[in-house]
Amino acid sequence: MGRDLTSLFDPGSVAVVGASDDPAKYGHAVASQALRAPDRRPVHLVNRRGGTVLGRTAATSLAEIGEPVELVVISVPGAGFEAAVDDALACGAKAIVGITAGFAEAGPAGLARQRAVATRVRDAGAVLVGPNCLGIADNTTELYLASDRFAPGGVALLSQSGNLALELQLRGAPHGLGFSRFVSLGNQADVTLVDLVEDCARHEATSVIAVYAEDFGDGRAFARAAAEAGKPVVLLTAGRGTASARSAQSHTGALTTSADVVAAACRDAGVELVRTPREMTVVLAALSGGARTNGRRTAVFTDGGGHGAIAADAAEDAGLDVPELDAPTQDRLRTVLWEQSAVGNPVDLAGMGEQRPLSYADTVAELLASEEVDAVLMTGYFGGYAASDGGLGGGPAGGSVLAEGETRAAKEIVAHLAATPKPLVVQSMYPQSPSCRVLVEGGVPVFSATEDAARALAAMTGRAVVGSPSEATPEAPAEATADVPSEASSETPSGPSSGASSGTASPAAPGSSARPSSGSTCHTSSRIAPLPAAQPPLRDPGYHGIRALLEDAGVPFPPAREITDEAGLLAAAGEFDGPYVLKALHVLHKSDAGGVALRLADRDALLAAYRDMHARLGAPSYSVEAMADLSDGVELIVGVNRDPRFGPVAMVGLGGVLTETLRDVAFSLAPVPAGRAEELLRGLRTAALLAGVRGRPAVDVAAAAAVIERITAVAAAHPEIAELEVNPLLVRPEGALALDARAVLG
Amino acid sequence: MGRDLTSLFDPGSVAVVGASDDPAKYGHAVASQALRAPDRRPVHLVNRRGGTVLGRTAATSLAEIGEPVELVVISVPGAGFEAAVDDALACGAKAIVGITAGFAEAGPAGLARQRAVATRVRDAGAVLVGPNCLGIADNTTELYLASDRFAPGGVALLSQSGNLALELQLRGAPHGLGFSRFVSLGNQADVTLVDLVEDCARHEATSVIAVYAEDFGDGRAFARAAAEAGKPVVLLTAGRGTASARSAQSHTGALTTSADVVAAACRDAGVELVRTPREMTVVLAALSGGARTNGRRTAVFTDGGGHGAIAADAAEDAGLDVPELDAPTQDRLRTVLWEQSAVGNPVDLAGMGEQRPLSYADTVAELLASEEVDAVLMTGYFGGYAASDGGLGGGPAGGSVLAEGETRAAKEIVAHLAATPKPLVVQSMYPQSPSCRVLVEGGVPVFSATEDAARALAAMTGRAVVGSPSEATPEAPAEATADVPSEASSETPSGPSSGASSGTASPAAPGSSARPSSGSTCHTSSRIAPLPAAQPPLRDPGYHGIRALLEDAGVPFPPAREITDEAGLLAAAGEFDGPYVLKALHVLHKSDAGGVALRLADRDALLAAYRDMHARLGAPSYSVEAMADLSDGVELIVGVNRDPRFGPVAMVGLGGVLTETLRDVAFSLAPVPAGRAEELLRGLRTAALLAGVRGRPAVDVAAAAAVIERITAVAAAHPEIAELEVNPLLVRPEGALALDARAVLG
Repeated sequence: MGRDLTSLFDPGSVAVVGASDDPAKYGHAVASQALRAPDRRPVHLVNRRGGTVLGRTAATSLAEIGEPVELVVISVPGAGFEAAVDDALACGAKAIVGITAGFAEAGPAGLARQRAVATRVRDAGAVLVGPNCLGIADNTTELYLASDRFAPGGVALLSQSGNLALELQLRGAPHGLGFSRFVSLGNQADVTLVDLVEDCARHEATSVIAVYAEDFGDGRAFARAAAEAGKPVVLLTAGRGTASARSAQSHTGALTTSADVVAAACRDAGVELVRTPREMTVVLAALSGGARTNGRRTAVFTDGGGHGAIAADAAEDAGLDVPELDAPTQDRLRTVLWEQSAVGNPVDLAGMGEQRPLSYADTVAELLASEEVDAVLMTGYFGGYAASDGGLGGGPAGGSVLAEGETRAAKEIVAHLAATPKPLVVQSMYPQSPSCRVLVEGGVPVFSATEDAARALAAMTGRAVVGSPSEATPEAPAEATADVPSEASSETPSGPSSGASSGTASPAAPGSSARPSSGSTCHTSSRIAPLPAAQPPLRDPGYHGIRALLEDAGVPFPPAREITDEAGLLAAAGEFDGPYVLKALHVLHKSDAGGVALRLADRDALLAAYRDMHARLGAPSYSVEAMADLSDGVELIVGVNRDPRFGPVAMVGLGGVLTETLRDVAFSLAPVPAGRAEELLRGLRTAALLAGVRGRPAVDVAAAAAVIERITAVAAAHPEIAELEVNPLLVRPEGALALDARAVLG
Repeated sequence: MGRDLTSLFDPGSVAVVGASDDPAKYGHAVASQALRAPDRRPVHLVNRRGGTVLGRTAATSLAEIGEPVELVVISVPGAGFEAAVDDALACGAKAIVGITAGFAEAGPAGLARQRAVATRVRDAGAVLVGPNCLGIADNTTELYLASDRFAPGGVALLSQSGNLALELQLRGAPHGLGFSRFVSLGNQADVTLVDLVEDCARHEATSVIAVYAEDFGDGRAFARAAAEAGKPVVLLTAGRGTASARSAQSHTGALTTSADVVAAACRDAGVELVRTPREMTVVLAALSGGARTNGRRTAVFTDGGGHGAIAADAAEDAGLDVPELDAPTQDRLRTVLWEQSAVGNPVDLAGMGEQRPLSYADTVAELLASEEVDAVLMTGYFGGYAASDGGLGGGPAGGSVLAEGETRAAKEIVAHLAATPKPLVVQSMYPQSPSCRVLVEGGVPVFSATEDAARALAAMTGRAVVGSPSEATPEAPAEATADVPSEASSETPSGPSSGASSGTASPAAPGSSARPSSGSTCHTSSRIAPLPAAQPPLRDPGYHGIRALLEDAGVPFPPAREITDEAGLLAAAGEFDGPYVLKALHVLHKSDAGGVALRLADRDALLAAYRDMHARLGAPSYSVEAMADLSDGVELIVGVNRDPRFGPVAMVGLGGVLTETLRDVAFSLAPVPAGRAEELLRGLRTAALLAGVRGRPAVDVAAAAAVIERITAVAAAHPEIAELEVNPLLVRPEGALALDARAVLG
């Protein structure tokens, strides 16, 4: 499964076309890098003027080399790109890296050229990265075909921006972060982000996949590949605001996707979504450490109260819990601390660390041993005793006895961690001090900023809170994907994805201590439900056609009849009891236009309403319906839109008059299994309404969730439906009932 | 006005009692620092054992010195503190710094001791900092009485945590931030945070006041002092979550205040509220730069699209606008850029910077010249050409021509800024590069993290967004304080505070370029309305007593009569028309208990409701009221609570069934002028309801705001009312009407 990219990442030979001695040319940078591993594989430099480049004889053409070349980098002026590709294919190339720019990002003509080239490459059985890219590198095969050098490590970096990749590389260094591979995505004419995520998932030396993307291509396939990767995927993207969407469009001609959809896909796929290069680095440092847990009860501890209070707030801001510790744990802490120490959580050594640095280690041991604690956040001065000039600035003069004690404490802490799957993250004013380096080498992420430590711990507990509260829905149980409709999938012949990856432990990062992992994490259980097989297209997109489609799928509606005249009206009224609802059909925004009459007590009221409505609107047909009992009910809205990148995307939220004002809605890729739908509803800001407020009874959320599963499955099975909406979906103490529906065909 | 702290910050002589040669004792650290300026003033060391300390002869007592000492630092074991204070006062001390711990933070007995000492000090005409503090420092008078060294500069740091002060000092260094003063607040037994803010406001060498506080003491006085300081005040505090509140209590025995109240007071006072030391540093770096504006239209620009898109999102997250530039500005940008550059905003040089670094300066000049642009955020590679090993890591080899060009561009940028009040903030991968240093020296804040640059710019535009959207209410016009009720203030004899400070320009930080400031900023206009004179205490805290009190203050209610029997009921019904409302009085949670009957059409219905209610509840009295017309109305809630630190605090928000679920409320110190009340209402998440949704008419927000001013003024004038609530306050298309009220006496 997935494309074979061996020729790209481990070719037997390489040629750089456009190699140059001119440092202003990119062909110079790539050629220089390519020559860093001269013994690994033949590296040929090609310059049409011949002569020497970088002290080597350059061939004037690929043909002049006289032997096949497996991978060809092309960095020539735009007009010569196609000829160079043809030469490369003629020379037996199985992989091409296209540096040359001026294709899709330059407009429709460029897009057409790009498509033609990609077809030629694929027809020849080769693969193409780019064009308009900055090259690739693979530290595990000594392949250096980009201008930057990347320190070796476990992160595979797939980026649509060269400068951001550079920043990530610079930021990663102090955290000991290194890279297994780097791929500049460019225009993704042939090899796509999805191909690369799939390949990096198989790549043993890669422990974390880091992505900067402006255009996701097949976003749904990306989400599925990420969910099935079996290792963490961290995504940095732009386009939350209109300004960044403008920028991404002009930068790579990217078709940007709404931030809501991207965030939903990431949650569904277990992808860590980040907002900035700094946050990306923090999360990569956290996920390279190995230890992860599903719990979020965090013990915060420090020596000196201020840092503990600030860190406790930061932890709660990041979605962690900082509960007060129970008496038995407090008692055990007291056995290793002195009287003035605070043991409630935050735990404050209150000066004892300065007297006896090993009390830091003793405290960590007690906290890790407590069943009330899932993770530990240590914050403040630790590192200062051993720091001579480490960290943010000059450390204190500090007695060498304290420094030695602190370093010994760091070693003991690492030893304690080896026996537990629980994560420890450290914030230190002296992150570069010898004692903090002991922690880092022992697999403990250390940060200088409190909020970074909290964000890292949130990533390690699978509980990251990014952005609005409505995004902070709890993680689904792994079995949620078992709830998908049973229709066979035409798009994912391998069947539901959860089977393949559940229970797969995330491999630890190379170089980090191999520590046990507590239970399954969000990174190993997929939530991307397969698309159901397409159903025969909907014939009648009118109201009763949509109702029939949904009713056939098991969505309950009140009794209704479509009528066109008074005789039909009266016949319909005879079929079920009042009160009635009358709706004018084929009228845009019928509610605002006065095309809906509710609570019509009997036939007379119904007839009067019909005559009034018909006189005003002259609609061709009407719907007579039994009025539902609205008492104690809550109105929801359920919609499914088709995103060009991510396919059908469901929105569920609070309906009624506050829908637009509050915009209290949640998104998920459709179809939405009932379990996931219930999570979305329980995560709404107004979820308390569902549980019953002011003495009202709780409503039947499970019934609503089951109906949401059916509605979203119908939408997903009908590619011709661009937009499907049930509004309101009435949910009452017992059961749920769709009261109106509409569809827009694409 | 304010206490004279000259003896504290510029004493003629100093003694350190408890000076020691033992590096483990704090008296050693303070004595060492005190001796750093041996020629400025006499420094005496006192150790009861005598001998030498730090190579100097130590006196065995203060008396042995034989001459008066103006400032005495006391760092002795707890039991000896009072005696040392008496000795100091006997020796003529006018200022005492109490390092010794074990007072209020240790419990009630310690608090009593502390109070007694403070009284003795005040009776002697002296001042006391601490006890339980870590000392003070004043770089402008060479006074070094704390263990840490602080680089000189314009920040006065007032902190309740020594370790956090240390972190701020370490973090500030790379930004060139220095400190005018440092005060460890300790237990604030005598000299309080408020005294210190007032003194630092008068201190010319202080340009920004930075505070870490867990206990605000007289919070309202702090807010007023900050609002009137005439220079920015930045506050780091803890206690947003329950865990940090626990911590602060155990750390300093602090009485913590709800995060909502602190945030409201900060908004009212124009204080920049921050969450972490890192954010504090970012804001200090921003506000030390001098340039500020009230506009928030931000131009983002970069060379290389990814950074522009990420920065645009970060800017919008921070509350800035990133609007598309109009055609004329785009045209002017095109005259200095090349074809592939993007000029819409984000502006992307698209490689031109690498060809001609001066294009960075040209672009800044055009953006600053545009009337559409209030501020500029430059992001990405700038700094890289001149960096050899600066910034986050190794810079590129880079041609020296490019490096020179970049440095020249930095100089030109600084020159362009001298002619405009608009701020520029820079994010660079190479913040320590020579070209970025040119910018920093020219007063431009430079950060390595995108989100830091955005946060800084938000602080410079007075538009910082901290936390939830409801906190992001727009700034009030400066004249809002003119709306306070006309009662003379008994608590602030100097009258409304806005007069004193409006129009006062914030002084530029020492060492920064003195740049013009655009218009008034939020840091120079106070919003702390004075407390009205206390009114005679409320006699009847019952429903009709509260109604009468509020009606007398001009709060409109529907007609109502209190009745105790059927005869009274019928008489009341004769006085005004139905429909009626009947309420049982003196019943807790009367609405939930079935003690409220609405929409009683006529006397018969009223009588039936009375009989039913009386049989069920047997309440001693009832209220018969005219039922208000609820159509097209929105129900608000208005409450005033009395915070032990900040006094009367008003809450306004959405009323009705969603009040508790949505908690869509905003806070402000009471009394709330009508203009501010309207801002609070317009800033609610559900504000769209007030403007009319789904065809409903807009409601009379101005009328509601006027009523809120009256309600909050009544509460503020009645210190005996612990809690006053009007719920609902009905606001309709014309007018507002209080429908119910209750009070709790303190």
